[in-house]
Amino acid sequence: MKTLYSYWRSSCSYRVRIALNLKGIEYQIHPIHLLKEGGQQYSDEYKKLNPSCKVPTLEVFDENGNSVYISESTAICEYLEEVYSDVPLLPKQPIERAKVRAVYNAISSNIQPIQNLPVLNKISEIGGNKMEWGKYWIDRGLESVEQLVTQYRGKYCVGDQITLADAYLVPQLYNARRFNVDLTKFPNLIEIEERLLSEWAFDNAKPENQLDAEK
Amino acid sequence: MKTLYSYWRSSCSYRVRIALNLKGIEYQIHPIHLLKEGGQQYSDEYKKLNPSCKVPTLEVFDENGNSVYISESTAICEYLEEVYSDVPLLPKQPIERAKVRAVYNAISSNIQPIQNLPVLNKISEIGGNKMEWGKYWIDRGLESVEQLVTQYRGKYCVGDQITLADAYLVPQLYNARRFNVDLTKFPNLIEIEERLLSEWAFDNAKPENQLDAEK
Repeated sequence: MKTLYSYWRSSCSYRVRIALNLKGIEYQIHPIHLLKEGGQQYSDEYKKLNPSCKVPTLEVFDENGNSVYISESTAICEYLEEVYSDVPLLPKQPIERAKVRAVYNAISSNIQPIQNLPVLNKISEIGGNKMEWGKYWIDRGLESVEQLVTQYRGKYCVGDQITLADAYLVPQLYNARRFNVDLTKFPNLIEIEERLLSEWAFDNAKPENQLDAEK
Repeated sequence: MKTLYSYWRSSCSYRVRIALNLKGIEYQIHPIHLLKEGGQQYSDEYKKLNPSCKVPTLEVFDENGNSVYISESTAICEYLEEVYSDVPLLPKQPIERAKVRAVYNAISSNIQPIQNLPVLNKISEIGGNKMEWGKYWIDRGLESVEQLVTQYRGKYCVGDQITLADAYLVPQLYNARRFNVDLTKFPNLIEIEERLLSEWAFDNAKPENQLDAEK
């Protein structure tokens, strides 16, 4: 069985849990606590699996049965898409696929990296307010995502099928709430989120439904 | 002909120029100046093409000949890979493809977004030193990339063929020099960079070889 190294509140882990669930892939969670013991992601053991010291990492097996550890949530999701094609999370046409990737990269490159834990800690160190910092970038980034999705949407972010764009949107909106972003400014995103959260794959992947969740 | 909206010093534009050159795709550059007029990327006209107000954007044509504007360098590169498959920039095997994507995402998600222009301006605004900020994140991020590449490399970042990982590496090393990062700590990256820069596709894409380059 596949093992996902994951932290319950990590939005990058959350994306991958959604993709695994949507595709009906069995997996077990190996929790990596990002705060305990100075951050378990910095342990020598974990660093061997993921030199970036980030979650998630997915353990898969090559044709000889040897473990291979895939880092970076986007590399993992694209891998799953290629290997488990029964439930596609990208459309067929290249231009439509590009729209999905434009939306998910607008989240994975333009928002999440600027509001993640190491960056927030550094902001505090240089005298900034980390809640304000995170809120500013999420708000600004979601504005662009709202505009892209307004152009591309159907029932979901791009057209009428659930895609990776949706798997990236829901965790980013979860983070937005942690930073008190006013989400009423993004009516398309909120409407689509509500539809997505009624699906088992999204509900099961929620932070509060993880075995390592804390109250 | 394809039009690439690009800025000479933007590392995300630089990646796409390399990918276009490697694949032998003809394109013209429409320069977007990120500093002049308060940033031409924020003009109403450009915002319609790219709501994130970032470069690059690639204009392509759908099956009816209508213009479609693809935003996000990674969405563009993956689109080019799907449509122009004669010169592949991803390996064939899913696990090998995942390695390439892990390397390029370690650059496109973990380094570049934290050292880009809007973030640096905000760092100055809150009283931080933007050169120190950029240097810190590039240095830290390249350390992880060096480790990944040490595991995955052959003549190039992943194996013996040029891939998208290489197209992302060279622009990030260009940025590293602008921030005075000590690159001697990354011997694998530097060795591979030297080999890549001897290729026309990389040389032609260099910032200083662009029509909008400034002294």
